[in-house]
Amino acid sequence: MKPVNCSIITIGDELLIGQTIDTNSAWIAQQLNTIGIWVKRRVAVGDLKDDILSALDEENKHADLIILTGGLGPTADDITKPLLCEYFGGQLIEDKEILEHITRIFTTRKRPMLDVNLKQAMVPDNCTILFNEVGTAAGMWFEKNNTVYISLPGVPYEMQHIMSERAIPKLKDFFQTPSILHRTLVTSGEGESFIAARIHDFEEQLPSYIKLAYLPKLGSVKLRLTASDIQEDEIEKHFEKLKTLLKNITVSDEDIDIEEAINRILLSRNETLSIAESCTGGQLAARITSIKGSSNIFKGGLVPYSIESKINMLGVKKETIETYDVISSETVIEMAERCREKLHSTYALSVSGHLEKQENETIVWVGLSKEGRTFSKKVNVYYDREKNGVFVGNTALNLLRLFILEE
Amino acid sequence: MKPVNCSIITIGDELLIGQTIDTNSAWIAQQLNTIGIWVKRRVAVGDLKDDILSALDEENKHADLIILTGGLGPTADDITKPLLCEYFGGQLIEDKEILEHITRIFTTRKRPMLDVNLKQAMVPDNCTILFNEVGTAAGMWFEKNNTVYISLPGVPYEMQHIMSERAIPKLKDFFQTPSILHRTLVTSGEGESFIAARIHDFEEQLPSYIKLAYLPKLGSVKLRLTASDIQEDEIEKHFEKLKTLLKNITVSDEDIDIEEAINRILLSRNETLSIAESCTGGQLAARITSIKGSSNIFKGGLVPYSIESKINMLGVKKETIETYDVISSETVIEMAERCREKLHSTYALSVSGHLEKQENETIVWVGLSKEGRTFSKKVNVYYDREKNGVFVGNTALNLLRLFILEE
Repeated sequence: MKPVNCSIITIGDELLIGQTIDTNSAWIAQQLNTIGIWVKRRVAVGDLKDDILSALDEENKHADLIILTGGLGPTADDITKPLLCEYFGGQLIEDKEILEHITRIFTTRKRPMLDVNLKQAMVPDNCTILFNEVGTAAGMWFEKNNTVYISLPGVPYEMQHIMSERAIPKLKDFFQTPSILHRTLVTSGEGESFIAARIHDFEEQLPSYIKLAYLPKLGSVKLRLTASDIQEDEIEKHFEKLKTLLKNITVSDEDIDIEEAINRILLSRNETLSIAESCTGGQLAARITSIKGSSNIFKGGLVPYSIESKINMLGVKKETIETYDVISSETVIEMAERCREKLHSTYALSVSGHLEKQENETIVWVGLSKEGRTFSKKVNVYYDREKNGVFVGNTALNLLRLFILEE
Repeated sequence: MKPVNCSIITIGDELLIGQTIDTNSAWIAQQLNTIGIWVKRRVAVGDLKDDILSALDEENKHADLIILTGGLGPTADDITKPLLCEYFGGQLIEDKEILEHITRIFTTRKRPMLDVNLKQAMVPDNCTILFNEVGTAAGMWFEKNNTVYISLPGVPYEMQHIMSERAIPKLKDFFQTPSILHRTLVTSGEGESFIAARIHDFEEQLPSYIKLAYLPKLGSVKLRLTASDIQEDEIEKHFEKLKTLLKNITVSDEDIDIEEAINRILLSRNETLSIAESCTGGQLAARITSIKGSSNIFKGGLVPYSIESKINMLGVKKETIETYDVISSETVIEMAERCREKLHSTYALSVSGHLEKQENETIVWVGLSKEGRTFSKKVNVYYDREKNGVFVGNTALNLLRLFILEE
């Protein structure tokens, strides 16, 4: 079966001067993969007619499906729609259904409708409309010489809606494609090269039609097996081998983050968590509560950012901080214990340290508490403020996960 | 002066199946812009030799400078280095300086060195090495037919280091380029189309060599003026006009986020802040503390995620919650007042609401407290859990900013 190749063209100067990070392409690629369409290239070009046209011509050589995002908003720098009209030889006409829809949106939100908004009801007469229920910029589907072109707005929320509800079902229909299988193992606690050394033989023995990719993040590495057009149990067999080899560092055999793994474990045990975090400033609580349903397992958090608040708000003894320092095993253990008591949770996690690089070593202490047991660990950090936050987050959450799971 | 055009080629299957979001390109584009190099195209291709070669050939038509990132890590799926050797007609040789450097890194971190790590000291003999002080994968600079090719590792931290310390100075030297001027106005409180309507005349009158772009985020819109090869005071004149037109919704006339604006205001006034946030689960505190030096202005935060913790930990009256509901003006006002008292801060911000879509309207209450004055505001949210978090964050932080600044 001939594979269906896709090129994604993202349009917008903001992507080229680096003021916006392109999250749309990654999302689109994930969705296409589930229906067996492979993104072969992604191209970003500016808001210039010639650059967009030349990208269309070039990607046409590579792809059976071309998805364009961006350039459809209400503001004046948008040129995509007239350009598509020209490229496919149509003209802009007013679409009644879209006009009614836009009017309804503005009436509901009690905001006056502007000329630029009305303009969004104008669409090329030679495309199939991919209706946008959640916004004002419609998606468009064109066909030319057996190639499909889909134009979508750049606002992620609207793009995602049109893609899921309109484009994906239509693409499934149009292309007859193989399904691509992925299996992802999430690990934490060892770096990329160490994992590579541990599974060297496994990799050597992997058949050529199954690909292994390393997806390292700060404090966590994901390993992904990919194959197309094979049986589920074939890839499963190899994935089971990989799981066995990396059992002691495995967070999950599903593609989820550590915070989601923790949410699931606690929910299944009917247990709860609280967090007292200083240097991470709320990041750990924010990650735990980013998961839907976290209110069932998360009692609450404290961000005692000053020494004063560690003493007054959390109840850490002044002497402990004075004797052992605010960044110490003793302090994080007291933080975890007081936090667990105050919030009546099964487990408490605490963190105190530096995220900003210090003169000698830069360290963060992690504390853990459950009934009858406390634990602390020193973590060395090597990056900048932002990256250290992510690294400490993954490391602390993984320590918590292991602490919950220990017998 | 002929502009220098750059194409960025990012290499890696993980970018095409959507498991990694490309943040490198945006960062590289920002750096190049400061030295007057314009990114004209960005292309992402997979770990396939033919696809990388064809991208090199094609981008060669568009660009004077081609920057490749990715494909240089220690693991087995990396093919970039041999390919570059072949493309530029060189061969891999061991670089003594790099070998010593890699050995030093492993000795310092007390980790055994593996064969895959040693392999990283092998580099093409026909390139200039861009030394990587913070990692094991070296950067490489090739020249061919007046085009410059730079190959960088995909790990953001290492890529950024090589780019800043090695590539940028060398590029400045190699190309004689115009400087590009940007001025960015950060606004909050009004949507893209409303702003567009307000500054319609300004846009019409803008000379063609100055470009205006709208960069909308959830709850905040950035407006950016761009021009190359003009005098600083020329763009400044137009930027001043824009500032005057949008005075009432301006957060900053520098390209900073609202949390940084708040940090600066509080620091300049020697005042402090505390936060009690329920539904945002730590996100607001994490944003405030993401700014270096925030320990000077942030006293601490509470994440009273359950009703129980709102009462026991924060001290909200049970009757208030029972009479008015946990999501109400009365509750967030008490949350803000108790938080300010507990943490002895000049201002307190509180939040209680739903981020998950509710059957009828989905709302979040924001509360604010300073001595002698409290304030609350209902915020309607329309997106999914994650986006509502960002939207509420921008909206609540902007309300806080206005509350601090009010006479």
